[in-house]
Amino acid sequence: MPLSDMIENMARDAREASRHLRRLGRPRKDDALRLMAKMLSARREDIIKENRKDLVLAEETGLSPAMIDRLTLNGSVLDGMAEGLNEVADLPDPVGEITGMWKRPNGLQVGRVRIPLGVIGFIYESRPNVTVDAAGLCLKSGNAVILKGGSEAIHSNIILGRLLAEALHETGIPKKAIQVIPTTDREAVNVLIGLEELIDIVIPRGGEGLIRFVTSHSRIPVLKHYKGVCHVYVDRSASLKMAEEICYNAKVQRPGVCNAMETLLVHEAVAGEFLPEMVSRFRGAGVEIRGCPRCVALIPDVRTADASDWPAEFLDLILAVKIVTDMDEALDHIETYGSRHTEAIITTDYDRAQRFLAEVDASVVLVNASTRFNDGNQLGLGAEIGINTSKLHAFGPMGLEELTTTKFIVYGQGQTRH
Amino acid sequence: MPLSDMIENMARDAREASRHLRRLGRPRKDDALRLMAKMLSARREDIIKENRKDLVLAEETGLSPAMIDRLTLNGSVLDGMAEGLNEVADLPDPVGEITGMWKRPNGLQVGRVRIPLGVIGFIYESRPNVTVDAAGLCLKSGNAVILKGGSEAIHSNIILGRLLAEALHETGIPKKAIQVIPTTDREAVNVLIGLEELIDIVIPRGGEGLIRFVTSHSRIPVLKHYKGVCHVYVDRSASLKMAEEICYNAKVQRPGVCNAMETLLVHEAVAGEFLPEMVSRFRGAGVEIRGCPRCVALIPDVRTADASDWPAEFLDLILAVKIVTDMDEALDHIETYGSRHTEAIITTDYDRAQRFLAEVDASVVLVNASTRFNDGNQLGLGAEIGINTSKLHAFGPMGLEELTTTKFIVYGQGQTRH
Repeated sequence: MPLSDMIENMARDAREASRHLRRLGRPRKDDALRLMAKMLSARREDIIKENRKDLVLAEETGLSPAMIDRLTLNGSVLDGMAEGLNEVADLPDPVGEITGMWKRPNGLQVGRVRIPLGVIGFIYESRPNVTVDAAGLCLKSGNAVILKGGSEAIHSNIILGRLLAEALHETGIPKKAIQVIPTTDREAVNVLIGLEELIDIVIPRGGEGLIRFVTSHSRIPVLKHYKGVCHVYVDRSASLKMAEEICYNAKVQRPGVCNAMETLLVHEAVAGEFLPEMVSRFRGAGVEIRGCPRCVALIPDVRTADASDWPAEFLDLILAVKIVTDMDEALDHIETYGSRHTEAIITTDYDRAQRFLAEVDASVVLVNASTRFNDGNQLGLGAEIGINTSKLHAFGPMGLEELTTTKFIVYGQGQTRH
Repeated sequence: MPLSDMIENMARDAREASRHLRRLGRPRKDDALRLMAKMLSARREDIIKENRKDLVLAEETGLSPAMIDRLTLNGSVLDGMAEGLNEVADLPDPVGEITGMWKRPNGLQVGRVRIPLGVIGFIYESRPNVTVDAAGLCLKSGNAVILKGGSEAIHSNIILGRLLAEALHETGIPKKAIQVIPTTDREAVNVLIGLEELIDIVIPRGGEGLIRFVTSHSRIPVLKHYKGVCHVYVDRSASLKMAEEICYNAKVQRPGVCNAMETLLVHEAVAGEFLPEMVSRFRGAGVEIRGCPRCVALIPDVRTADASDWPAEFLDLILAVKIVTDMDEALDHIETYGSRHTEAIITTDYDRAQRFLAEVDASVVLVNASTRFNDGNQLGLGAEIGINTSKLHAFGPMGLEELTTTKFIVYGQGQTRH
């Protein structure tokens, strides 16, 4: 069967399954999630055996040790995946919630009820645990999902997809509710993102190249972020001890992720006191500093930042540092170079805190806390399938509720329109 | 200046204006809306003079009398537009609403606050009053808007845009918050929908061709509906008198709009009693009936529907009629041919009413009321900029709240992530 027919058939099956999922109550979905968790444990050997095939290929193609590490499934990784599924089972079911109801002058009762989006196309790279995480969140929110993972994890993804479908089937849920595309052919992505009649939403997760490709070719709405160019602004009124702890955490705790700090903005009134010590602590952690001319003048051996550093998402132990003359300059810098992802201010000044919260255009804006908190779990959404920096649908981290929409329901007694 | 530069400059200006709009409180916005309403009255002669130019061109190019009627601006049309602006001023401001706030175990206070989307590209055909309606809704919701109207209304749109911008300026709001693209060159649409860094959302309103073109070429998220293939299902338990009134209203009251009924589904148990009288009433109103074979057998002179009639949006006094053996068949028919727009059941049976509401996949699902109620005003949203049948962001009619999104705000006391 040609690839395009195969993908289209999968999408048709997913749509059919989604009609069933719409009507599914919470207990059945939770049963399936818990059974999936059990099967990850019971079928451990089978999974690890398939994962080995990916690892052998990865060695042959010379994948970096870091990539191979991310690809590896072992007992503790599988336990973590199972725990994640059980946690999703424990979360409330968003589907069916009445988010509002009101009565019109003509007697119509109008309400809004939460429903699944329908069919989700999820396109991602690398780690096979994402297959299970995403499938669990989609099931709990009543959505069918088609998963297209990275080619390096193909064997792992296929067996995980098979186990998940088996758990669905044993719980009386159509197994086409979770489908893994069983090919490494990149053309599959092209076909998938053209099926606008069958798929409701596409979520790409991976490198900026993948995401830009999907966004510019998809006929289906896409939820995504390209990159996270996150700033911390240390105000003149900041507690410098707090600023140091937060900046260090935001840059160093996990530099390769989208909510890590990439540029530090410091008010000139405190730069002299704050920066030398901060930079020396950063250097102790192996962070390379690229500074504005004033920063370079202040601290020996700092490399001068060039124009490409301010909009850069380093995803690495590199930090751009700029001294600003006032808060307006910090806000302008964020407006120009920020990616609408995560922005933080460190201040003890009430008015400036409120102004920063009100004026900064980003999915998460924080006062006196690390940018690393832009994460569905950390913010209390329970889990997250990704972060959206387009303003449509759900700005910021997307949990279960963000995988749903609402429809209007209307109770009448024969009303007609005049 | 080349067209593409002109459009890009407009979008840059809009983005700059949107930064100002974000911070604007309700009073200033309402003042501007009320001033706009006044100016539509005070500058009546100027507007009508420009509108005349469009009408002369319309006569020359042989536009249909119905189209010319829609294009014509006179005193009462302008009064209606002014009234619309005043009504929008009376509506609550959605911006700034805290939609939720909670505390995390680590002490972070996490909230969600309603913010404008940013910059809206609005692409529409024909009636110049849409220029004013859309601009008013965008302003009230804190969004900058770039308006691209139909070429036949270009003179009217340009003068209306100029007046609106003047009212903004006099109220101390950047006048680039509302901009009309002053050209009939269709290439302007192409440029506009490619500016993903500057425009947050595109709303096309018009014929299916325009909407399909915009959707398949836009790099910016699009909110739209292609068409409304709306059904009324008359259940075996229906009050047939009520069914007749609702069906008549849904088809005849305004047949050319997206929430008019296009297909009538009738349970076989009541078809014999219900259909002959209903069809005769429809025929009295000039409605052409296209029936399934059983309908044709039941009623003399009904034309047999062909395969193209079931998915058709007639937008005219034409109705497809199908007799179904049970509710399942009705639900299957709606699942297959419905456009997720508006669906209604007429029934006295409680369980069937609830099942229809739960299972039908449409933006508005009604029990015992006319499909014509799928409209932002009628459902109590106050006003509407369009109806969205993609499930992303806002499924169904979009009012002021649907022109906003939420961002997360976080109040910390020095929290870092472990």
